Amino acid sequence: MIEPVRFELSAKDIPETWYNIAADLDYVAPVLSPATGKPVTRDEMARTMPEALADQEMSREPEFEIPDVVRQFYARWRPSPLARARGLEQALDTPAKIYYKYEGVAPTGSFKPNTAIPQAYYNKLAGRTGLIAETGAGQWGSAIAFAAALFGMDAKVFMVNVSFQQKPYRRALMETFGAVCTPSPSAETEAGRAILKEFPDHPGSLGIAKSEALQTAFSDPRWGYTRGSALNHVCAHQTVIGQEAITQMDMAGDYPDIVVGCAGGGSNLAGLAFPFLRAQLNGGPNVRLIAAEPAACPSLTRGRIAYDYSDTVGLTSLTRTHTLGHQFVPPAVHAGGLRAHNIAPLISRVVEEGLMEAVALRQKDCFEAGVMFARTEGIVPAPESTHAIRGAIDEAIRCREEGVGKTILFGLSGHGNFDLSAYERYLGGTLADDSIDPEALEKGMASIPKTGNE
Amino acid sequence: MIEPVRFELSAKDIPETWYNIAADLDYVAPVLSPATGKPVTRDEMARTMPEALADQEMSREPEFEIPDVVRQFYARWRPSPLARARGLEQALDTPAKIYYKYEGVAPTGSFKPNTAIPQAYYNKLAGRTGLIAETGAGQWGSAIAFAAALFGMDAKVFMVNVSFQQKPYRRALMETFGAVCTPSPSAETEAGRAILKEFPDHPGSLGIAKSEALQTAFSDPRWGYTRGSALNHVCAHQTVIGQEAITQMDMAGDYPDIVVGCAGGGSNLAGLAFPFLRAQLNGGPNVRLIAAEPAACPSLTRGRIAYDYSDTVGLTSLTRTHTLGHQFVPPAVHAGGLRAHNIAPLISRVVEEGLMEAVALRQKDCFEAGVMFARTEGIVPAPESTHAIRGAIDEAIRCREEGVGKTILFGLSGHGNFDLSAYERYLGGTLADDSIDPEALEKGMASIPKTGNE
Repeated sequence: MIEPVRFELSAKDIPETWYNIAADLDYVAPVLSPATGKPVTRDEMARTMPEALADQEMSREPEFEIPDVVRQFYARWRPSPLARARGLEQALDTPAKIYYKYEGVAPTGSFKPNTAIPQAYYNKLAGRTGLIAETGAGQWGSAIAFAAALFGMDAKVFMVNVSFQQKPYRRALMETFGAVCTPSPSAETEAGRAILKEFPDHPGSLGIAKSEALQTAFSDPRWGYTRGSALNHVCAHQTVIGQEAITQMDMAGDYPDIVVGCAGGGSNLAGLAFPFLRAQLNGGPNVRLIAAEPAACPSLTRGRIAYDYSDTVGLTSLTRTHTLGHQFVPPAVHAGGLRAHNIAPLISRVVEEGLMEAVALRQKDCFEAGVMFARTEGIVPAPESTHAIRGAIDEAIRCREEGVGKTILFGLSGHGNFDLSAYERYLGGTLADDSIDPEALEKGMASIPKTGNE
Repeated sequence: MIEPVRFELSAKDIPETWYNIAADLDYVAPVLSPATGKPVTRDEMARTMPEALADQEMSREPEFEIPDVVRQFYARWRPSPLARARGLEQALDTPAKIYYKYEGVAPTGSFKPNTAIPQAYYNKLAGRTGLIAETGAGQWGSAIAFAAALFGMDAKVFMVNVSFQQKPYRRALMETFGAVCTPSPSAETEAGRAILKEFPDHPGSLGIAKSEALQTAFSDPRWGYTRGSALNHVCAHQTVIGQEAITQMDMAGDYPDIVVGCAGGGSNLAGLAFPFLRAQLNGGPNVRLIAAEPAACPSLTRGRIAYDYSDTVGLTSLTRTHTLGHQFVPPAVHAGGLRAHNIAPLISRVVEEGLMEAVALRQKDCFEAGVMFARTEGIVPAPESTHAIRGAIDEAIRCREEGVGKTILFGLSGHGNFDLSAYERYLGGTLADDSIDPEALEKGMASIPKTGNE
């Protein structure tokens, strides 16, 4: 007789709807047009994305039906496993029970395809023949390359030049799926050319890559511009994670006291946490929700709630969220996906309302947790995911110290197979620790626009 | 309503026994001692491996019970998924149904942990505190590093020097699991020192690494030497693959006409194919079993059936199998795992008895198949696994040409996340095609010892 450690569902258990937490919040701040300072209308929103996504973005309805085509593609790897981390529990000698929801089984190794697939679907439905995206560490670019391949669409990815040079395997992954991967800044766009003229060797940044992707998409109707995180509809798409997790915790005969997720743009955390919050807001058990963010880019713990742009240059609309300022530049930490200066407005709002906590964690502590997880559970986690592991371990240690056996669930948002160079540096003792740069913080804060809407 | 594409079992469906095909074959050639030329006794065999494994190695019983501890660890990722490749079917416009059994969900990304876990278990039971292995491409070393971590044992891996230099991420993976990874030839062993004295810059070979691992293990009883393929007990451990596949094909309401696996050392193919062969030998439906081997190292299609050593130097016992000669050196193909000069004796015997076919496939044709699979199914396959995909695609194309709708099952033995540099070269047009070197073939054939037992 073996003890169950993995709780598996089948294709019929894939959720039939995405959950939209905006329905359960008293207030959701409108998105503002940078030109007029007024709320963006539905028609304005639909200029930058398919109508179906614009509707989801602005909706206060609690549920969006998941199209069958999308569920059919989800069935390639979903439902993802939920597992009990018995090896980790033993190593920590904790009375806590630790579970994790593992998104690394997705073909590109992270949670990103959960939204890449529906974004491809709605863009194709709207007549687009190609998908366009910017990417830093490469997770989002890979997911879009994958989704485009499945829908028979073209894919074009602007990849931050320094990552393009340093991560040839991520690039090779996207190209294997058939995507065209362009180092940014490039000579293909006005934004890129302007920067190259002044700095021919510019290493690039996510903000620049985003500007290039936006300019390309908005100048040619064949392309659909896609979003990897932060937006309301992206958070909704990710709620398949938490909905499945609730069913699986039930299979395990358990329910979490604490749910931890890593927080960059916020959609992975939202996907895991919001369905539990929904249950709580509708009379279910209270759950402590914890956002684990990097100390080097601590929007929730050090940022200000204000209207700000999502890109460096100021091409996007303004959203009200925790922000370090759109010109904040984090130090070169390796948790590539957690470098956003601001966070999903819905996560921000939930934190503001006191429904979620946030902790800022340092990189070396996170890698230590990641290595411990690898050696006890057998999976090398993505650097981003090590933040959630660190957060969970800290809570499990507290349980040991206090002698209480809580149930902890964390999100293992992806595997680290493409990030082994960072582990190599960590194990070799050459990985720099990270902390926030006070000057960068000051410069960032000064860049928050004064809209009078704070 | 969505169509099922993935057939998932739960932990209770993990097989309770390993299947040993030696029980169902009329003749199994004895292993010979190179010193005496006589059959190796059970006590001699038990000098190089735990008694329990020596018993399995020499057994003619059909089943070995899987210890609960092993099944418990299997439950971390097993049962592995079986999926219907509908995207690939559509792209090929074939009336064939194509299924694949996917072993890439294992923590190290391939089928190897299926035997690494029990080998760790039996070695620990026998009082060993560490596991030792040689590795080329890194699949076996990673699996041993992983298994050792789970059992709280040390791991030492001799890695072919050229791979050690070229595959720093594989090395980092092993080190993240806590293994010590040594480039071979090394100064740590007599075998290594002898070679370094003559050739200080020797790139290493799997044969040399094996000699170093054997010398280290046999000189210190703390270490247990482990085997990644070829041996009877290794083939048996892998039969969890085929046993699960039979149950899953049944869930799909189907049964294969054709089963294809890639063939290097042979254990992955054995694991998938032997349970189907068992069914056939016991009155079940006939299945065409196909071994897909690389044209650059074609032991089954170009080798001779003879007694030969398994290493380059001649330290191992002699086994009767298809061999290209123990001094055969394949050209530097990238399908790293398929470079063995000989094959599992049980696979060899099954081919000799006409129960399995073999095809030799060229590298570029295999990568073409691998890219097609990635773009239609979303998973980048290991270069080794692309041989099985090519074999399956060729059969599906034949079905289209002949207008017959057969059911094809192939083994997707692992993912290609660690092999993207090979895809980069393939897509960039710089991947060399491979073919057998006539001189190497002649030299190899001449190295087959004359034992009078052919």
